[in-house]
Amino acid sequence: MNYPVIVINYKTYLETAGKRGLELAKNAEKVHADTGVDIIICPQMPDVSMIASEVDIPVFAQHADAFPPGGHTGAVTLEVLKEAGCVGTLINHSERRMNFADTEHIVSLARSMNMETIICTNNTAVSAAAAALSPDAVAVEPPELIGGDISVTTADPEIVKESVEIVKKINPNVEVLCGAGVKNGNDVLKSIELGSRGVLLASGVAKAKEPAKVLNELVEGIIKKI
Amino acid sequence: MNYPVIVINYKTYLETAGKRGLELAKNAEKVHADTGVDIIICPQMPDVSMIASEVDIPVFAQHADAFPPGGHTGAVTLEVLKEAGCVGTLINHSERRMNFADTEHIVSLARSMNMETIICTNNTAVSAAAAALSPDAVAVEPPELIGGDISVTTADPEIVKESVEIVKKINPNVEVLCGAGVKNGNDVLKSIELGSRGVLLASGVAKAKEPAKVLNELVEGIIKKI
Amino acid sequence: MNYPVIVINYKTYLETAGKRGLELAKNAEKVHADTGVDIIICPQMPDVSMIASEVDIPVFAQHADAFPPGGHTGAVTLEVLKEAGCVGTLINHSERRMNFADTEHIVSLARSMNMETIICTNNTAVSAAAAALSPDAVAVEPPELIGGDISVTTADPEIVKESVEIVKKINPNVEVLCGAGVKNGNDVLKSIELGSRGVLLASGVAKAKEPAKVLNELVEGIIKKI
Amino acid sequence: MNYPVIVINYKTYLETAGKRGLELAKNAEKVHADTGVDIIICPQMPDVSMIASEVDIPVFAQHADAFPPGGHTGAVTLEVLKEAGCVGTLINHSERRMNFADTEHIVSLARSMNMETIICTNNTAVSAAAAALSPDAVAVEPPELIGGDISVTTADPEIVKESVEIVKKINPNVEVLCGAGVKNGNDVLKSIELGSRGVLLASGVAKAKEPAKVLNELVEGIIKKI
Repeated sequence: MNYPVIVINYKTYLETAGKRGLELAKNAEKVHADTGVDIIICPQMPDVSMIASEVDIPVFAQHADAFPPGGHTGAVTLEVLKEAGCVGTLINHSERRMNFADTEHIVSLARSMNMETIICTNNTAVSAAAAALSPDAVAVEPPELIGGDISVTTADPEIVKESVEIVKKINPNVEVLCGAGVKNGNDVLKSIELGSRGVLLASGVAKAKEPAKVLNELVEGIIKKI
Repeated sequence: MNYPVIVINYKTYLETAGKRGLELAKNAEKVHADTGVDIIICPQMPDVSMIASEVDIPVFAQHADAFPPGGHTGAVTLEVLKEAGCVGTLINHSERRMNFADTEHIVSLARSMNMETIICTNNTAVSAAAAALSPDAVAVEPPELIGGDISVTTADPEIVKESVEIVKKINPNVEVLCGAGVKNGNDVLKSIELGSRGVLLASGVAKAKEPAKVLNELVEGIIKKI
Repeated sequence: MNYPVIVINYKTYLETAGKRGLELAKNAEKVHADTGVDIIICPQMPDVSMIASEVDIPVFAQHADAFPPGGHTGAVTLEVLKEAGCVGTLINHSERRMNFADTEHIVSLARSMNMETIICTNNTAVSAAAAALSPDAVAVEPPELIGGDISVTTADPEIVKESVEIVKKINPNVEVLCGAGVKNGNDVLKSIELGSRGVLLASGVAKAKEPAKVLNELVEGIIKKI
Repeated sequence: MNYPVIVINYKTYLETAGKRGLELAKNAEKVHADTGVDIIICPQMPDVSMIASEVDIPVFAQHADAFPPGGHTGAVTLEVLKEAGCVGTLINHSERRMNFADTEHIVSLARSMNMETIICTNNTAVSAAAAALSPDAVAVEPPELIGGDISVTTADPEIVKESVEIVKKINPNVEVLCGAGVKNGNDVLKSIELGSRGVLLASGVAKAKEPAKVLNELVEGIIKKI
């Protein structure tokens, strides 16, 4: 990842499925081309290969299972994700929590495959634990703010600052992102002022009437800063 | 579904990922075109949309989560699967078991969306329970034979016969498929003689040196019969 | 089980832990002794052995795991439950759902150990599926009514009637109980009029100021009927 | 906890259920009385209250669920465990893994309730992550050695040394225990020489013909050292 970065999690919104998901990816690609700001997209699982083949910005998975290739019906391995065009994966999102051993396995395996990982966390203590696994980044998101209207940077700036402090203390190579309620350029700007290196967001873009416009606003927050 | 049917579960084999998965789909499409025998493919999740757009045979998911569209990171909804080109889904595979309520939800929701469901089961009693949910089909597979060298039709023909009997007693509209260890046309033939309407297989095709050849052999079993 | 029956699920309420749980058990024992109406109690897991040794009414577990005795830290097997004094178990409660294969395993294993099972279900279709596994009883509880103030017998009497019909059609030996919001004797009476053979309840007793009084009222509903 | 400590995990062995579990607890109590060495027992869940009321050595749970008291059928809360006489709990055992957020919740809640926690881990990286959550101790156990005949201290001494180093670096207040294959006093002695403060064992005691004798041998390893 290059930082600052904006990570767009498609989740399972109708608005990000299929063609609309591809269109969102194209919009993100254009904003990146226009501004140089890095945008990572995390498409819905069935669309990963299709979307990754159509855009030239980094594609992450929303999740990966700690299974090797083989007889694991319904699972998604890092191996198939890499072949599908993913360069990394979110892991342990509040909506898809994972145990320690499996998270560690995915982080280590990804590293050996030159893929990147962002471990999502729900509070400062968990950010610390995640940092100890040496992912590329930790993304702290208070679950109660996810999908809401108030940005974590307004509602709970301390969690961002404290996560940055503790993560850097445990492993200075791990970057911190933040998310939950992030909607506009001010939220992004604030997140960077708090020491994070980018934001993770979903509904703010996915459910926007004009996603392209929202993307541009988000990026402005970063451009102002750098 | 048209019966008899051959369902090919890609699982998470390296041999079915990406391009090789697409090639397998093309082979299945060709065998169907040549013989008229119905073949359903269940690609790896990240490839579903990509493969469904390239072939003209039915594509099923390997699994679907009982979540509505929305904030469910890492999940796969029926809605996105339909948009990705799936016409149905396996559910409750031995490698991805699901609880009663979620299975019932997926079966009912699929029905309302004109999608089809195959509930996988591990024994006769579970086949009966699955039939009571009125899926399109029940696929019985003794877990200890999955991925092995001996076909269920040889190792445990009774489980197929008994599943057919009890499923038909509970709901005559539900068809029975069988799987586990199925490798060739004789196994398919035998499965149909036992009352099933098709087979579910994975490694037999996925790990074959010449998948196209194996597909042809499987279909011969059906052609002999009909 | 003897029917009609009142099943009291302690869940994890503070009010049913330890000594208060034992006191509730003693109250249930007294009401049974006074009236002859059968009451089953399902204590909190750590108290099962302690409570079962102190009362002379049937004790069920709230849940059992589909593991054999052995290396399964944190699990609860039917074997240890039997030794602890349980004569049966609830299974697949809406708050602890279980997959088909594991539920079937517990029901079959319990039968072979002369223990009884009540499969909890969330709707009519799932009641049908559960009946196909031949437990002793199916307890239908609409999840949205659990813990609420309106009894299933008032809010959704159809689900009880329909569950009775379909369960009896699939397996006449399986009895139907109902639950969710059940609070007093009228609810019990109504449930029996709808064809169920008893009720499953939790907060109505557990959180009552005077549990003994509530137990007496519940039993009155049954006594009126028989 | 006082260190060095021997933690006996009853798991779900038939040999530790009910009366035999109580007898094992009595044996552990006697060895402690005779030698002063601390022994913690982790009974099977249904027996926790019964056993805790009969012995005067610390009782831990094998697991606790991250639920508050309330409507959580089949779950085990810290609150009921405390009332049942537990002074702490194992968490995240390889046979009952838990996600980050829930583990952190249990560790924090236990601290606020004056209960102790031991987070089980499967490798050095996970030991580091666990230490970041500030439990009382981390118990490292390579899963492939659990239940086997070769002690971790012989098969993989590095994992113990490295876990001690990294845990102490992240949080010097957290102690390290080790387990898997531990069977006798030499294994205990070796574990302490490697920097751990005690052992976690199960089958070595639970399945022994003479558990009391094995307990005495284990303690000798500690006495030699101190």
